[in-house]
Amino acid sequence: MLYWLHWIDLAGVAVFAIAGTLMAYKKHMDGFGVVVLASVTAVGGGTLRDMILDLPVFWVQDPSFFYVITAAAAVTILWLRRKETFPLKYLLFADAIGLAFFNVMGLQKALTYGASPFIAIILGTMTGVFGGLIRDVICREIPLVLKGELYATTCILGGAGYILCSTFGSSIPVAMFVAFSLTLSLRLAAMKWGWALPVFNPHDKITDE
Amino acid sequence: MLYWLHWIDLAGVAVFAIAGTLMAYKKHMDGFGVVVLASVTAVGGGTLRDMILDLPVFWVQDPSFFYVITAAAAVTILWLRRKETFPLKYLLFADAIGLAFFNVMGLQKALTYGASPFIAIILGTMTGVFGGLIRDVICREIPLVLKGELYATTCILGGAGYILCSTFGSSIPVAMFVAFSLTLSLRLAAMKWGWALPVFNPHDKITDE
Amino acid sequence: MLYWLHWIDLAGVAVFAIAGTLMAYKKHMDGFGVVVLASVTAVGGGTLRDMILDLPVFWVQDPSFFYVITAAAAVTILWLRRKETFPLKYLLFADAIGLAFFNVMGLQKALTYGASPFIAIILGTMTGVFGGLIRDVICREIPLVLKGELYATTCILGGAGYILCSTFGSSIPVAMFVAFSLTLSLRLAAMKWGWALPVFNPHDKITDE
Repeated sequence: MLYWLHWIDLAGVAVFAIAGTLMAYKKHMDGFGVVVLASVTAVGGGTLRDMILDLPVFWVQDPSFFYVITAAAAVTILWLRRKETFPLKYLLFADAIGLAFFNVMGLQKALTYGASPFIAIILGTMTGVFGGLIRDVICREIPLVLKGELYATTCILGGAGYILCSTFGSSIPVAMFVAFSLTLSLRLAAMKWGWALPVFNPHDKITDE
Repeated sequence: MLYWLHWIDLAGVAVFAIAGTLMAYKKHMDGFGVVVLASVTAVGGGTLRDMILDLPVFWVQDPSFFYVITAAAAVTILWLRRKETFPLKYLLFADAIGLAFFNVMGLQKALTYGASPFIAIILGTMTGVFGGLIRDVICREIPLVLKGELYATTCILGGAGYILCSTFGSSIPVAMFVAFSLTLSLRLAAMKWGWALPVFNPHDKITDE
Repeated sequence: MLYWLHWIDLAGVAVFAIAGTLMAYKKHMDGFGVVVLASVTAVGGGTLRDMILDLPVFWVQDPSFFYVITAAAAVTILWLRRKETFPLKYLLFADAIGLAFFNVMGLQKALTYGASPFIAIILGTMTGVFGGLIRDVICREIPLVLKGELYATTCILGGAGYILCSTFGSSIPVAMFVAFSLTLSLRLAAMKWGWALPVFNPHDKITDE
């Protein structure tokens, strides 16, 4: 495994821990539960990825991930105690960065361990999406991934960008950088301009019985 | 592993993908999140089963499952865009078929890999129930499995039917067919006639403090 | 693996099954779904622990756990049918005992299979917290672990007690007993006197947009 991938994993864990802490703050949670929520958000996607790939779970032999989560949560808490307001967009922004990091990491790890490109794109998307999905389900929010705005789609397009780059002979770091930038910029654009992918006819009627 | 089991798994995945798409429609979701919800519903139970049995997760080496999910979701979306109404019973019906398919598959796979009959019945039930449970939790519905109507019970009785058949010397396909029919017909009957298994006294009072 | 650890696992499973059944009762659930909820609560934490440690899941080769769950749920149901009232504190009390049992078991199992003390404390906390977390998420309650009162913190302090004891040369049973007592008494004290760990400034304002 490439040595610097570890740092990307750590970075993804840190931003998702921040996103989890912000959500805990938004939902008026308190106590150590904040760190639990930050941890679930931060390691949820990667844990699922490793269990599905039947690899040792990435944080079990390496305590540094939980040091990073604790530090990220602590800094966020201190910052929130100073500031008296908290714009929701910070949460969405941290979530977008975490999404892009984890998408790339999941994709790269799946490819490294022999998954086909198609399955690697799915595992990347799953890694990116799952931590935030658990966070939202635990907090009883409608998961971001299920709202109309582009979310999982940005991971799939970012992953496709990676596969395209490596097909045309890019080195792994370049392909990863392209996938990261593509996922992040698509997600930010979707947030800014409300890009969506409507699949249902808005005039449909539902008869519940 | 028997060759045609693959087709049963694909069929179960397809109907649960339809059930997931219908639920997404019912909850006014949109975008690619619909396919995410369809996928979670469709592969959730089998993924948990394989992780618990410590086997390679069934879809990792085989992209066909996601082709089937995408196709099933696409057809359902197109159909929903044509029809202007959507009776809830279609969702319950697709869910019942998926339940029966996955119950049988989970049971068969657990037995194939050496689980005892008792544990195999539990793993079958878990495979059948879990995808729909995640779907309902994500969508903030009361999970079908926790409502009064027979649900998990039908899986257990279907599984018991399998064990009984194979005890009396049936071949595997016959036992699987019996278990499938038993689970499905019990579940449909429970839906039609409201069969339930009351365990609590309806006149109980709860003091919350 | 030490022989009597099995009994501790069984005891933890039994009290969490009771807690799951009480929650099902509180939420007016019925049918076999009650047993499903009891099972999820009882085996959820340990299943996750074993999947993360990449060990065979503890109940797959041993049906006794599900006999215990069924028996515990049945006794609780009979008791609830007799009594006409149900004080919520019974649920919280069963949950506290299960939390302490599973914390110790998770910690011990992680150490036995070579985890570092730090990771073992996290895995113990996860084992203790996760079953109840799933139970609360499925029942659409705010998870106990995310409320302000000490919850995950008691597991961490209990785990730290274990590590301290074994550093000073205690035998494993003594260290386990200390960790169990510490976790349980801290949790009960937190419930009685509302001990909390406030991390956010209560006067903060949130701007949602």
